[in-house]
Amino acid sequence: MITGNTRLFGIVADPVDQVRTPQVLNRLFEQRGHDAVLVPFHVGADGLPRIFEAFRQIRNLGGFIVTVPHKVEALALCDEIEDAARAIGAVNTIRREPDGRLVGGMFDGIGFVAGLKARGHDPAGRRVLLLGAGGAAAAIAHALALAGVGSLTIANRTLSKAREMAERIAASAPGVRVEAGVADPSGYDMVVNATSLGMRPDDPLPLDVATLSSGTLVAEIIMKPEMTALLGQAQARGCPVHLGRHMLEEQAALMAGFMAGGPGASR
Amino acid sequence: MITGNTRLFGIVADPVDQVRTPQVLNRLFEQRGHDAVLVPFHVGADGLPRIFEAFRQIRNLGGFIVTVPHKVEALALCDEIEDAARAIGAVNTIRREPDGRLVGGMFDGIGFVAGLKARGHDPAGRRVLLLGAGGAAAAIAHALALAGVGSLTIANRTLSKAREMAERIAASAPGVRVEAGVADPSGYDMVVNATSLGMRPDDPLPLDVATLSSGTLVAEIIMKPEMTALLGQAQARGCPVHLGRHMLEEQAALMAGFMAGGPGASR
Repeated sequence: MITGNTRLFGIVADPVDQVRTPQVLNRLFEQRGHDAVLVPFHVGADGLPRIFEAFRQIRNLGGFIVTVPHKVEALALCDEIEDAARAIGAVNTIRREPDGRLVGGMFDGIGFVAGLKARGHDPAGRRVLLLGAGGAAAAIAHALALAGVGSLTIANRTLSKAREMAERIAASAPGVRVEAGVADPSGYDMVVNATSLGMRPDDPLPLDVATLSSGTLVAEIIMKPEMTALLGQAQARGCPVHLGRHMLEEQAALMAGFMAGGPGASR
Repeated sequence: MITGNTRLFGIVADPVDQVRTPQVLNRLFEQRGHDAVLVPFHVGADGLPRIFEAFRQIRNLGGFIVTVPHKVEALALCDEIEDAARAIGAVNTIRREPDGRLVGGMFDGIGFVAGLKARGHDPAGRRVLLLGAGGAAAAIAHALALAGVGSLTIANRTLSKAREMAERIAASAPGVRVEAGVADPSGYDMVVNATSLGMRPDDPLPLDVATLSSGTLVAEIIMKPEMTALLGQAQARGCPVHLGRHMLEEQAALMAGFMAGGPGASR
């Protein structure tokens, strides 16, 4: 039951209809007996600065999640940034302090790695191919490197973006082999799609599935559809698959804790 | 169940904890099977312009209610104003058009009059003393004049504000006697408290209850506490009383219809 006392949380995205954060975080609030609600805000890139300006003024706002396409631009709009988020170059969770300051953290990466581990896929020592070089990809690369992968290759349509990201991640995880490469999964233990390809029915596949061998784990971060074309075709070729929702399931409590004013636990 | 598809509505107020609009409108949405939710936004006067700027950008926002202390200031921030709201000089309900334009309407007055009628207190022909000259008072004065009261006297701490309001209302309801006066209920059939006095436990009474005679109806628009000190003392003197919540009960459907894009029915 929402009343005038209810603490407000949000998720800002464009599009927004595919997000599952409201369901997951509202269930968490209910389980914990918090008088809080998380609602969707459909806002395009042009509108983002004004949203940040306004959200500083909303005194019952605890914080908000940002997702596609805002994770990189949102970083510059925060008043304070957690160290890990700064290293990643993106934020996905923003806490509003009582004085209105907005503090950004990034939980996609640790959420994704926690999701892998929860499903029995510890990435330590594995050879990983990561597709994409946006905000979510950077967070996942950062967390995979810290989780001790054997090697990490970042493939992206614009190769220069993959190179920049590989250099940044390598600098923050000395001793891990991180490099830019092409979207060919041959010889990898794990492929992670961190592009947005797969959200729309007519999207092309992010790689040529004919090159997938049956031992390679194929992981998504897309939540809707749950079974993307990539996952469906990988499964048909005998590959184990890992759903996008596991990333959110594992990071929900981390995001809620951060927005509630807990210690800055993002990395 | 709130999802990424849920249409967003709000109430903007300071303070906000006393509002009952979330309960009333969310129940209405549920009864009608609308995938919509109304949440509180606690925003002070300083923050209001930035809220309007941001709300234009939120594509899934259907509209929002504004209440104390924003009803007058919000009028100037809208892109378009219903005729009645302009005559009243205040808005309480704002619809967001698909292109982001914000259209303001005012439903306090017709909600209040509908609430009176629903409880058997038709104001037609009655001598009414109205306390207060803010946005809600102006709306109530306008609707009472259109409902054909016998006479309307407006009392306010700052008498000049009461005089200005009386002139404005008289101009929009020719043939009804509207004037400024003092907060003495002797000789009136009905007294309406449209000041904010009574929201806080240590507020002074808006009039001297010793001057109330037992036949005078005493009406509130304050929702919390439901039984204000004024109503309690009036009841103890044998006066019939009329609760603040009746105004909201009757106007909820009007506000929801206006925000959903229905015809501009405010007056």
